Amino acid sequence: MMEIDLIEILGLIAAFLTTSAFVPQVYKAWKWKNVEGLSLGMYLAFLTGVLLWLVYGFLIQSLAIIVANIVTAILVMTVLILIVKHKKTNDTP
Amino acid sequence: MMEIDLIEILGLIAAFLTTSAFVPQVYKAWKWKNVEGLSLGMYLAFLTGVLLWLVYGFLIQSLAIIVANIVTAILVMTVLILIVKHKKTNDTP
Repeated sequence: MMEIDLIEILGLIAAFLTTSAFVPQVYKAWKWKNVEGLSLGMYLAFLTGVLLWLVYGFLIQSLAIIVANIVTAILVMTVLILIVKHKKTNDTP
Repeated sequence: MMEIDLIEILGLIAAFLTTSAFVPQVYKAWKWKNVEGLSLGMYLAFLTGVLLWLVYGFLIQSLAIIVANIVTAILVMTVLILIVKHKKTNDTP
């Protein structure tokens, strides 16, 4: 069983700090529909990485890694949806 | 002792994918000295998070977390130096 011990609290603080840093970009894309300079391919690769981290977190039973990557996956998927939604009008089919 | 097993290989692939996604921003800041929109406070918070992840990685003996956060720390410190170097000319003391 996973226990929330001091190490996990440290990991969760780390998760909060690194995940928070991603929020302004998501907010910018969401609020102003500004997805300029955001690459679909790069975000897909990033999402793949985040999902692999999530699997890794489950395998080594790290609560901090699991929590960090669930939150990040939701943020990245939000940006991906916004990229697809707001970029397609400018692209050729 | 830490062994490189299949789980660690999965973690290292995850690390490669998520860390690579950060490289274009570092390259942009480095090559074109473009640090507009990059916040010093946000990057300092992010660096703190990355360093805490690094401590966490050592504590739970996760090679993937250690490698990912050493590389990310170097990238973030590079951006931080560029922000301080190229923003100070526009700022009041």
